[in-house]
Amino acid sequence: MNILTEKSSTTLKSTVWRKTCFLSEFSEKAASAACLMGWLHDRALVPDPTFGGIVLRITLRDCSGLRDFVVTTKPFIDLLSTLEYESVIAIKVLGKEILDVKILARAKPAIFSPKVITDFSTIDLVVHRPLAIRTERMKAVLRVQDQIFTSARQFFHKEGFCELRPPILSPATDPGIRGAIGADVNFYGKKYKITTSMILYKQMAICSLEKVYAFSPNVRLEPVKTRQTGRHLAEFCQIDVEQAFINYHDAMALAERLLVAILSDVKSNCQKELKLLERSLTIPTRPFKKLTFQEALNILSKAGFKQLQQRKELPWEAEKMLSNTFDEPFWVTEFPYGSRGFYDRQDPNRPAVLRDFDLLYPAGFGEAISGSEREYLYPRVKKRMLEQGLPLDEYSWYLDMLQHGVPPSAGFGLGLERLTRYICGLENIWEATAFPKVPGVHSP
Amino acid sequence: MNILTEKSSTTLKSTVWRKTCFLSEFSEKAASAACLMGWLHDRALVPDPTFGGIVLRITLRDCSGLRDFVVTTKPFIDLLSTLEYESVIAIKVLGKEILDVKILARAKPAIFSPKVITDFSTIDLVVHRPLAIRTERMKAVLRVQDQIFTSARQFFHKEGFCELRPPILSPATDPGIRGAIGADVNFYGKKYKITTSMILYKQMAICSLEKVYAFSPNVRLEPVKTRQTGRHLAEFCQIDVEQAFINYHDAMALAERLLVAILSDVKSNCQKELKLLERSLTIPTRPFKKLTFQEALNILSKAGFKQLQQRKELPWEAEKMLSNTFDEPFWVTEFPYGSRGFYDRQDPNRPAVLRDFDLLYPAGFGEAISGSEREYLYPRVKKRMLEQGLPLDEYSWYLDMLQHGVPPSAGFGLGLERLTRYICGLENIWEATAFPKVPGVHSP
Repeated sequence: MNILTEKSSTTLKSTVWRKTCFLSEFSEKAASAACLMGWLHDRALVPDPTFGGIVLRITLRDCSGLRDFVVTTKPFIDLLSTLEYESVIAIKVLGKEILDVKILARAKPAIFSPKVITDFSTIDLVVHRPLAIRTERMKAVLRVQDQIFTSARQFFHKEGFCELRPPILSPATDPGIRGAIGADVNFYGKKYKITTSMILYKQMAICSLEKVYAFSPNVRLEPVKTRQTGRHLAEFCQIDVEQAFINYHDAMALAERLLVAILSDVKSNCQKELKLLERSLTIPTRPFKKLTFQEALNILSKAGFKQLQQRKELPWEAEKMLSNTFDEPFWVTEFPYGSRGFYDRQDPNRPAVLRDFDLLYPAGFGEAISGSEREYLYPRVKKRMLEQGLPLDEYSWYLDMLQHGVPPSAGFGLGLERLTRYICGLENIWEATAFPKVPGVHSP
Repeated sequence: MNILTEKSSTTLKSTVWRKTCFLSEFSEKAASAACLMGWLHDRALVPDPTFGGIVLRITLRDCSGLRDFVVTTKPFIDLLSTLEYESVIAIKVLGKEILDVKILARAKPAIFSPKVITDFSTIDLVVHRPLAIRTERMKAVLRVQDQIFTSARQFFHKEGFCELRPPILSPATDPGIRGAIGADVNFYGKKYKITTSMILYKQMAICSLEKVYAFSPNVRLEPVKTRQTGRHLAEFCQIDVEQAFINYHDAMALAERLLVAILSDVKSNCQKELKLLERSLTIPTRPFKKLTFQEALNILSKAGFKQLQQRKELPWEAEKMLSNTFDEPFWVTEFPYGSRGFYDRQDPNRPAVLRDFDLLYPAGFGEAISGSEREYLYPRVKKRMLEQGLPLDEYSWYLDMLQHGVPPSAGFGLGLERLTRYICGLENIWEATAFPKVPGVHSP
């Protein structure tokens, strides 16, 4: 791995160096010189009797962590004691001795350096993400998320699902996004939306592959006030799953297997990260507890929640309270007819209820998964759309598709950032992704 | 896997059935009855002496393929001989005998059913995607793409890269997209764009994790005329890769290992699909052939290409011709200063060239990968931006980040759909994804 000599930032003779190892791999016992590259994280001038006088202790940071070095040579002390934190440097080291130092990129004084960040709830973490992302805490979160990606894929591969490249723009997308606004785009003269949910597309794909999933990019411009919930982003990723010829009980069982697989992998493969995040994971036992919507309402009204509407979804405060009463993930099933999107299938035998479900995380973390059996027969979908006052012409491709043999199916969406937030035990969801977009906040 | 009794479409007594196996698993020797669910793909009334008279031969289709069944019972013959193609049915079968038939979803007459599709170059495949996606050919392509996802992830995991959830919207994104327009979105009162390239974000992420990648959703509203190239989509996915402390030669070597890993996996795991697509894959030998931009120009002018501009990228016709002269993927490196985005690093020792590269597929498939070493020092990036007349204020977060210690790095983007197109040997790129958006075409 050559790195280039950067005349403009070379302080010593120009030589082509190589990053021979990461800090975590560096051994003071090594017989040959190692070249380490990273960020100047911390520094202190300290008296050191063994070297007879003042030496400079520096903390170097790279993707593998932090490590202290002692600089004893005058020119290197002069060079590094005036250098700003977060500057990128290369040091050539033999055992305890620093043979050479090179500055690769000088930093300006940072008001918000990783070294000083202690409050992880502040929105500054979003606005100053280029610095906040460098903290050991963010690294741990992102490595856990990487494991979530890996585990989910391995799970779906094992269960015979096919991964799809999700749609980004749609002429018509899920209207059932409480309170949020979709983002419009002019697509060659027609108004398209950034996909807010790929349910309609999943129904298209199962006509070919029967078992499909995707990591679907969703944009929902939530009201600015939702920022306080700590669990709303304006853009996020859904693990979107659909399977033909199954019912909503099968879909819930599938989701339980998926979640347990991910949690188990993270628990065994991300011990270092969980320790740093001071999070201990318990693997929930399957099957998860199931509450019907009606049972949930009863618990809530007993708890003193007033005017909960029978035909509405639960307000997030109620969801949070409910979530606080459990210590393992649990289902709320069979939402009332009229409370959800046209695609949630009405129970043929119990017209008042939908064959759908939400999964809630315990301990106040709230909604994890939302899913259902789908309405798949043209006349029924059309009836539902008209009841909800939706413009049929916008859904013309979908309504036409339903007249070409769409099978019964069920599926769900699992929010990647909310899962990351739950697993890592984060207060705010904007900690749960590398590049968060928070409602009303202008950030990178 | 229960499926629900659908009163409205039940033609026999309502019983809850299960899809006990896929067509490919069905064995006529099985001792117990199997329930198969799928689509009525084809049908023919044929004389059959063994049954003494006319019988109905139906072809059932599911995700695993096609299978013929012979219907001999009068009521079932009557039921199925009038049913439209693409209707979804369930049949209970014991050995060769059909015990029961249920219609799950009736289809209307299809002008464009999977059974009749022969021309795979027509744009109808995009407009009628809900039907076109059901063909055996589309299934094969999508299964190959699933393997590409899996192989890429396994490769990056093995090499210690961390997967990121990519940005969807950006206040500033890559301006260097030849001829295409980005899609604007009103993000809480500010003009954001759907990301056209996440290079700036990758540079942010390597300050934390050093080795990162993402499956990045990109929207580029290409000119309508680009449709004829067969390789431009208005939305697509890039396998976006970046690593700190490496140079452009290291990045090319990384890309070669990635490509060879994917091709090898597809070749060994997707034999059935490649056979159906009549595609034989050869695994290229590393290192791939390297042409400098100047050498490429010489080949092209010898081949009679007139007025090729020294400071411009190659027009796609030239790229295609060049691609046709090789039978393995090959690099074009060191594009002239002034021809590419501000982030392609200028060679400190040879100011006329950039330390960047494109990979081209052979046999006319054209561009595969585009990448470079990055400019990472604030004064140099600012100079480049000003030269290109870019509004610095739009890039304020990025320019600020560059003053906080961004390391030298190199990376690239590998187009998922173009890779799928090359591997599957497809004429048009809109065959290479489940839900294609083609410039100027209004489709699902």
